[in-house]
Amino acid sequence: MQLLKELCGIHAPSGNEDLLTQYLLSYIEREKSSWVIQPEVYHGELFQNCVMLKFGKPRTAVFAHIDSIGFTVRYENQLVPIGGPDAKTGYRLKGSDHLGEISCGLKEEEGNLFYEFGRPITTGTDLTFECNFRETDEYVQSCYLDNRLGVYSALKLAETLEDGVIVFSCWEEHGGGSVPYLVKFIHEKWNITQALISDITWVTDGVTHGEGVVISMRDHSIPRRSYINRIIEIAEKHQIQSQLEVEASGASDGRELQNSPYPMDWCFIGAPEDNVHTPNEIVYKADIVSMLKLYRLLMEEL
Amino acid sequence: MQLLKELCGIHAPSGNEDLLTQYLLSYIEREKSSWVIQPEVYHGELFQNCVMLKFGKPRTAVFAHIDSIGFTVRYENQLVPIGGPDAKTGYRLKGSDHLGEISCGLKEEEGNLFYEFGRPITTGTDLTFECNFRETDEYVQSCYLDNRLGVYSALKLAETLEDGVIVFSCWEEHGGGSVPYLVKFIHEKWNITQALISDITWVTDGVTHGEGVVISMRDHSIPRRSYINRIIEIAEKHQIQSQLEVEASGASDGRELQNSPYPMDWCFIGAPEDNVHTPNEIVYKADIVSMLKLYRLLMEEL
Amino acid sequence: MQLLKELCGIHAPSGNEDLLTQYLLSYIEREKSSWVIQPEVYHGELFQNCVMLKFGKPRTAVFAHIDSIGFTVRYENQLVPIGGPDAKTGYRLKGSDHLGEISCGLKEEEGNLFYEFGRPITTGTDLTFECNFRETDEYVQSCYLDNRLGVYSALKLAETLEDGVIVFSCWEEHGGGSVPYLVKFIHEKWNITQALISDITWVTDGVTHGEGVVISMRDHSIPRRSYINRIIEIAEKHQIQSQLEVEASGASDGRELQNSPYPMDWCFIGAPEDNVHTPNEIVYKADIVSMLKLYRLLMEEL
Repeated sequence: MQLLKELCGIHAPSGNEDLLTQYLLSYIEREKSSWVIQPEVYHGELFQNCVMLKFGKPRTAVFAHIDSIGFTVRYENQLVPIGGPDAKTGYRLKGSDHLGEISCGLKEEEGNLFYEFGRPITTGTDLTFECNFRETDEYVQSCYLDNRLGVYSALKLAETLEDGVIVFSCWEEHGGGSVPYLVKFIHEKWNITQALISDITWVTDGVTHGEGVVISMRDHSIPRRSYINRIIEIAEKHQIQSQLEVEASGASDGRELQNSPYPMDWCFIGAPEDNVHTPNEIVYKADIVSMLKLYRLLMEEL
Repeated sequence: MQLLKELCGIHAPSGNEDLLTQYLLSYIEREKSSWVIQPEVYHGELFQNCVMLKFGKPRTAVFAHIDSIGFTVRYENQLVPIGGPDAKTGYRLKGSDHLGEISCGLKEEEGNLFYEFGRPITTGTDLTFECNFRETDEYVQSCYLDNRLGVYSALKLAETLEDGVIVFSCWEEHGGGSVPYLVKFIHEKWNITQALISDITWVTDGVTHGEGVVISMRDHSIPRRSYINRIIEIAEKHQIQSQLEVEASGASDGRELQNSPYPMDWCFIGAPEDNVHTPNEIVYKADIVSMLKLYRLLMEEL
Repeated sequence: MQLLKELCGIHAPSGNEDLLTQYLLSYIEREKSSWVIQPEVYHGELFQNCVMLKFGKPRTAVFAHIDSIGFTVRYENQLVPIGGPDAKTGYRLKGSDHLGEISCGLKEEEGNLFYEFGRPITTGTDLTFECNFRETDEYVQSCYLDNRLGVYSALKLAETLEDGVIVFSCWEEHGGGSVPYLVKFIHEKWNITQALISDITWVTDGVTHGEGVVISMRDHSIPRRSYINRIIEIAEKHQIQSQLEVEASGASDGRELQNSPYPMDWCFIGAPEDNVHTPNEIVYKADIVSMLKLYRLLMEEL
């Protein structure tokens, strides 16, 4: 869990993912020699802050977004949200501007957001939750399990992956913007039409901790049913502990795949969490295990 | 009207259009030998559940969406909408899950939707209105005239079409997702920049039964005026009975053409209906006749 | 300011930009011989009503939208908005239909909009604000400074531009639709990944008249931070009077660049105005000067 803990602590709000990009590239460079297959690594200006790993002869791509929710400093002591963060008075935020490191408090008043700090913070500075990583035998808890856990799971998948693409995307929490060029690249280069969204979903009245990885049949977008059915069949055949999700709202990188000018099938698959978009996101450890198991099988059998 | 009746009865909610795709392919295979021009038929995995017919040297493409609104089974006896269905207690729904065929009632309570059935229905099952097709000398009435009537009209157009493309698209009722790759295909392959949306619009205070086919000058999206003007001129020149529509809301496959990375002109043209998105959609028959007449002329003269 | 005054008076609501396109093409044809570099001019059916100028070896593209907000005549004396116009009883509107020129009043009642004119106006006719152009030593005031001032600034930039692309786009005020194919063209032809949005922003509690050109760090969309930082550094290095903007809402052509299937960096840079989307938009003249200065530097140094 050391890897997950480090990932959760990195400042990478939507649009400013540099630090996580650098962390990923170092990690991949250091670790890949121990992986079953050596991937081709794609990054650089044409990928902005995204990173892509290509293994063998890929048929399916896994998307894991590296950005997080957060806050931008507006004028005076005002804040505006990046994505949809939970915002309660007392949450601790971090960041930095040209005067140095920042550790400040969040204040919410009638829907308006402010920081409390001993000096003004430069307009435009982005702030993220301070990380308090907690672990028990059963649970892991931290800010940004959404989606550092999806990134973690993708990196674990990379260790044994033989054929496939792993895509680390940006801006997912704030309207997207990288998936359109990423899907263009993988479709035009490798004819890929199958995708899995490695992300974290919500505990609801139909989805609970401890019941296994969630296969989402729909959220605000509706993926193609025939693809979802194949995934459910593979999970059932191998008796992977899993839960089905059906929601009317919510969005992911899948939305941008759906709207892309390529015939992409996609499915959101991830562990459920509670306290979504707070500093206290919590996930049941065994659900992470079944998530990784299902990804390994799907990348072989889809 | 037997063809229209059959089309209205087929279960094909957004994302699960398989049955209608199969019906269309059979129909086309069976009927096309009697058509003036034999089209090239495009379908298969790169088109997901869409079908495309290419006749002669095409300049203009007709888009008719084959999906419909409906409901997805959530948890327990809950339903969530597919698209924007009218949802009243007492409407009859149909579908099937691994236990067999389903015919159940819809119940609406304070905006929440439920099914009433003798057994639980599997999470993720999609349900559509049961079809009660009714016909008088003047009117046709059924669920899903939107857009089986647009599909019907396109198939009738196919009988005499010499130059053009007919595109049967998916997901229109629920945010789209197929038009982006369909327009990419027809523009890159045949340089097509002109489109007509064969779909059904609403009776309003400016659009009524019996006044002819509707030429929509705008809905939520605004097509290019110079193209709309050409269409209105052709309708006037040939004295086709028609009505002009101007609305601030509403969307169609035209929205995705507008937002595509191709310079597509488009116009929504279709018969008006009342009781939209209910099991009792109703259209005046003579308006269907003027719709088909106008399409035939436009495909020749645009 | 004669050029700006003429631009503000031209009828070019979203979707019907013909007149401004023709004006621009004439202006460019007449003036370009006096420019430092002779640009290649792109226009015609594949660009709909857009115009593109390519100078030298371009690295960065400037986008200026030529369309404006306005109103479409619905049925009877009803109007529906084009984009988000301010709509107050007494505003004067102009346009034309097949019966001739129109000069009429706007009436607002409980959110519904009507025209007042001596005869019915043809359904679908679009109307724009009548132009009352006013100038003092310090301020310029008119309808449609948004975005004729962005167009003006781009045309002034053209006089000395050595390397770059200037793009005149359409439909920006009403959901977009031209930027997707424009960006496809400039990226595929010249590998351009850098963009500046030459548009007009709002006076707010953090942005005021007289403090210089506005560099927008975010609105509803969040551009990539590393690009914004480069722009701020260039402005600071050359001591250009400028202000930073951070907002949670608002959109521009930048939104479509962000969502395009190309890795486009973008930044909104423009003078601030008050009385936005009214016939009385007002901008401080010195802010226009700093806007143009910054554009000249950025096109050299980015």
